Parts: sequence; structure tokens; C-alpha cells
Amino acid sequence: MDSRIREHAEVIVDHSVRIEKGDTVRVAAPTIAEDLAVAIYEKLGERGAKPSLSMRSSRADRAFFRACETDDFELPEQSLAEMEETDAVIIIKGAENTAEMSDVPPEKIAAYRTATAPVQKERMGKRWVGTQFPAPGEAQLAEMSTDAYEEFVYGAVNKDWDEQREFQRQMVEILDPADEVRLVSGDTTDLQMSVDGMKTINDYGEKNLPGGEVFTAPVPNSVEGEVLFDKPLVHQGREIEGAWLRFEGGTVVEHSAEKNETALTGVLDTDEGARRLGELGIGMNRDIDRFTYNMLFDEKMGDTIHLAIGKAIRQTVPEGQPYNESATHLDMIVDMSEDSFIEVDGKVVQRNGTFRFEDGFED
Amino acid sequence: MDSRIREHAEVIVDHSVRIEKGDTVRVAAPTIAEDLAVAIYEKLGERGAKPSLSMRSSRADRAFFRACETDDFELPEQSLAEMEETDAVIIIKGAENTAEMSDVPPEKIAAYRTATAPVQKERMGKRWVGTQFPAPGEAQLAEMSTDAYEEFVYGAVNKDWDEQREFQRQMVEILDPADEVRLVSGDTTDLQMSVDGMKTINDYGEKNLPGGEVFTAPVPNSVEGEVLFDKPLVHQGREIEGAWLRFEGGTVVEHSAEKNETALTGVLDTDEGARRLGELGIGMNRDIDRFTYNMLFDEKMGDTIHLAIGKAIRQTVPEGQPYNESATHLDMIVDMSEDSFIEVDGKVVQRNGTFRFEDGFED
Repeated sequence: MDSRIREHAEVIVDHSVRIEKGDTVRVAAPTIAEDLAVAIYEKLGERGAKPSLSMRSSRADRAFFRACETDDFELPEQSLAEMEETDAVIIIKGAENTAEMSDVPPEKIAAYRTATAPVQKERMGKRWVGTQFPAPGEAQLAEMSTDAYEEFVYGAVNKDWDEQREFQRQMVEILDPADEVRLVSGDTTDLQMSVDGMKTINDYGEKNLPGGEVFTAPVPNSVEGEVLFDKPLVHQGREIEGAWLRFEGGTVVEHSAEKNETALTGVLDTDEGARRLGELGIGMNRDIDRFTYNMLFDEKMGDTIHLAIGKAIRQTVPEGQPYNESATHLDMIVDMSEDSFIEVDGKVVQRNGTFRFEDGFED
Repeated sequence: MDSRIREHAEVIVDHSVRIEKGDTVRVAAPTIAEDLAVAIYEKLGERGAKPSLSMRSSRADRAFFRACETDDFELPEQSLAEMEETDAVIIIKGAENTAEMSDVPPEKIAAYRTATAPVQKERMGKRWVGTQFPAPGEAQLAEMSTDAYEEFVYGAVNKDWDEQREFQRQMVEILDPADEVRLVSGDTTDLQMSVDGMKTINDYGEKNLPGGEVFTAPVPNSVEGEVLFDKPLVHQGREIEGAWLRFEGGTVVEHSAEKNETALTGVLDTDEGARRLGELGIGMNRDIDRFTYNMLFDEKMGDTIHLAIGKAIRQTVPEGQPYNESATHLDMIVDMSEDSFIEVDGKVVQRNGTFRFEDGFED
């Protein structure tokens, strides 16, 4: 077996979910990622854990959804019962064909997600990690050979996470106590928001592997200005390019996209919260040096920031602060590597992708 | 997709476990059987069931067992919790390599089985079926091409099970009220036993797919005589050939084997019950016309009988009848197609593989 797979398994088991003797562990993997499941099972054996393996087959899911006559799904009680007795969850992504669900009506998938929400809610209270196996489907999406994509994935996940954590901590220390944040890129993005009272989280490869971002929540009604997301994104199999939003009093009052604007409109129309921001994140994993149409990686790319419309991440909103509720959460990315800066409380903290604490640039 | 796979899925879902709307269903499949899992999921969608999919990876199991430092396994509580909330279980066998566990100490596997026994016990109280996907591993074991093995498997499982049930019912009606059974084959097998008070079960593809046998339990201390099992069997990866047993008062008092006698001795030494018979079965599925080293098929082969040393099957032993308890259950087969007969209460009911109710042969 490729030694990088064993290394990936070790990062997952020992760093991300910190498995100890006696832990019940659920491993969910697509068939194509069997090698990684094998390597994880080896580590779980060494640690004395109690694993169970669950296959994700998007082909089976597709067949099920298409065969269902109604969207009136019910909770699969066996999955909730299993989750309740699980200490840690390892979710592996990886596709032979990322378009496998392209002929399933999105409403059906959404209805199923709603029906199974109690399982996901239970899972969020556990130690869990979502990670990526370098499968041909995601390689194709990234317009990379499978071999080159493997290099890319292992470069991003098999790294010194303690060092990464300390690097990112410097940005957390700036953002966590801050009030005003301003994001400027070219003449297309100039957005201001308050993060006053919100908590900044250091993501160093625990729940997401790769990690590599710091993120917080904007105060929902504080967002003003406009933003052009110059990196494309794929939402429910459709690529949205050149999404542009203008905010007033925290709410999107105007929007457009160069490609698939109706998809963007659909997301914004989900509910009231879908027109407000739920997340501000700063990508700091410089081993992610290219865009691959996979948000797990893209949002951590060095020299980028991302904003999500919709639901805020619970940990970032302390008790008593305004929480942006929504059924959706859509991350969108701005490239900050050129002609851009991030200003915090009136002080530039990043310019053209370089942080003040790295270079001590002149204001 | 091969239409035979869809037909197999339909037999599983509608005949074997009779899925209805709202049923929680656990599908356990090896990665190689994904096509069958897809076809089953399609049927489950049509029926309005609530499925979950569990991957069997013998490579992952092997890695786990080898990495474990001790045999001191604990119950994975999440698996028991899941099983408790499950209405029906579909277990699919299928291997890329049937020797995958050959370098795991059998004691470790046995210890794990003991630790997970509550899950299996819970499963036995559900609607469940074990079936076979025609994978290359089992094809190789059978010394068949994968293509020919597919023909063989689908011939055995995709059949008119109502017709098979009625065919077998004739044998159930003979064996169920019977007392004395005598099995004679050549000059190597002449075995007598009582089945008085025991229940004969008609297996027509419910818990086992393929089905195709009728089976009951011998009265444990009634077995007298000797038997040569002229079909080989594979036990924990080792092939036992030419196993021979002599019974007195129900107990094996002498034994030998042409190949791997120590493996046979090991089974007999498991416990007291391992030296007595737990099952008498009569194979009646004539679409199984060759031996494939796979007991799921072999024991149902037309013109054979099989006997199991060890644990009796619970359904065959009514309350108040003597139940043979053991940690083991090893099926062994006698070819009855030539120079052989089965006698029930002094009357020949099968001669050289032909039943009396088929041909009305002369005594």
C-alpha cells in the first residue's frame, strides 16, 4: 500500500479524532476508498478501538432516490441508534464520478437531508472528521491526472499540523478580539462587517482534513458593501461563476452571476437567513495552491478568503450573540493574492496574500 | 446493469425478506458487490423502505485483526444499537480473494465472534437473508471462470421459489413425522439416527439464498454407525478431504480424514457437543449441479445429504426436546447420487438421488 495512505490514516486517527482504547468508531467510506479504510482499520486495531464500517455508494443512493415515489422520507431509525452509540465518526469522500447524482431532483436530496437531520445533529456532537480520498472523480473535476491529484491531496493533509496551528494562531489573535473587518480586492470587492463578540476558530485539521483556515461569524446585520467571488463554485452539480453580491444592513439587496445566476438566486431564496452572511473564513493552507472545485480544499487555499451565505457555524457564535439561522450554507471564495488587502480595526493585516506577522510590511 | 442482478435483488427484497413500506433495512455488502447493492437500493426505494448500507471489507478486517495486540475484544455497541432498530438484514457475500483472512490467527476471529455474538443473536430474531454475489474469489475457489460462475449463481438463486417449496414439501411431509432415518452410501456410509419429535424445516430461499434443502435435528444420543463425507469442505481456509466418523450412542468415537485430519480433530475437540450431530439436511436444489467449496450452495446440491457436527438449529428442536449445544457447527456432505439410499421408518424414500414421490420406484 502507498505509504501516504498509511500516513493519512495516522493523521485521521491520532490527530483529527484522537482515538483511544475502547472508542466506538464509525468509518464511512465510498467503495473506491477501500485502501484508506484498510489503513484506518489497521490504526484502529492498534489503538484498541471498536470500529464499524459503512459504505457510501452514490450509485446506490441514486438508484434509491430515483425509485422512491414520494419525497416523504422518514428517518432511518437504525442509523440514529448507531450514531448515538458512536464516539467518533470518520467520513471519507471520494468519487468515481462526481456527477453520479446529476439526474436526481435536488428537492429529493433536500427532503432526504431534512428527514435524516437528527442523525447529522447527533453526529455534530461527536468527535468527527471529514476527509478526502484522492479518487479519479475529484481529480477529473480538478482537471488533474489521478497521480497529480494524489500528490496534491497528500500534500494538503499529511503535514505538520502543530506547526500549522501555531501559524494560524497569529491570525486568530488578531481576529478574535476585533470589531471591524474590511475586505478589499481590485475594484470589485469592498466589504465591511463587524465580528464584534464573535469567536474565531482555528481549524488545524480536526473536523476538516485538510484544515487550514481561521473562521468566525459576521454580525448578521452589520455587512455593507459589495463582493465579487472570483473563484467559481459547484453547487448541486452546477457551476456558479462570477457571483456578485451587494449588501445593505446585512442583507443581499442585489446579486448577479456570470454563469448559472438562477442557481445563485435559488440559494438566496431558500429563506431569510440565506440572504445574510453566516461565515467569514481566511484560507491559510499554502499546500493548497490551486483551485480544485472541492470546497473542503478550496476554502483553505492560501491567499484567499471565503464568505458563506446562510447558516452560521455554531461554535463561532457565543451565547447571547445574534445567530444567523438558515437551511443553507454556501461558501464562496475571493482570491486575495493580488491587489487586495484585509483590514482589521483600521489596520491592514494582510496585503496581496502576505500577513503582517510574516513580513511586517509598511502600511 | 446485468438484468440477472436486478432479478436477484427482486428475489431478495420481495421473496426472502418481504420488505414493506417503512421497514428499516440494513444491507451489508462487500465492495465488489456494489452492483447488487445498487439494484437492492432501487427495490428498497420502490418499496418505501429505510435502508442503510454497510461495507464488508475483508482487507480492512484483516488489517484490524492483525493490528490488535490482544484477543480481548469488546462489543461494538454502535453495531448492536443499529441492529436493534433494524427490521430486516440483507447480507451479501462475495470476495476478490477468499484467502484474505489466511494470515489472521483463527483464535482471534473466534474471540471477535464471541465478543460480537449479541449482534448476531439480535440479527437472528429479524427477517434476514444471506446470499452470494458471483465474485471472482468464489469463482476461483470453484475452479470456474467468473462468467460461468455467474451463470451458476443466478441459475441457483433466480428461480421459481414457490415451485421449489412445493417440491420440497413432499420430503418435509415424510421426514417431519418420522422416527428412524438410515443413510446408506456404497460400503463406506451406513448411519442410523432418530429424528423423533424434531421439526423438519422447508428452506426455500428465505434466510439462505439459494435455498433448497429440508433439514431437521437428529436426537443427539441416537446416532449409530459410520459415515464417509465424500465431498471435501473448507474449514477456516483449510480443505478437509475424506472425513470419516464413527458414532456410538450419538458420540464420535473414531475419526479420520485423508487430508487435514488435525483440522477435523480440532473441530471435534471444540467442546462436548462438537462430537455429536446437530443437523441432518437433504439437498434438493438441482440447479446446483456441481460442488463449489461454498457451503451456502454445496449443502443444497441435488442428490446429496449433509450432516453437521455441533450446534443444532434452534427452529428444528421443539421445546422439551434435547438440544445439542456447541460453539461450532460444521456441515459435511455425502454424495447420494450413486449406490445410495435414504430409508425413513424402514421404507426407502430416495434411491440414487431419485425420490419415491418422483418416480415411484420399486423397493
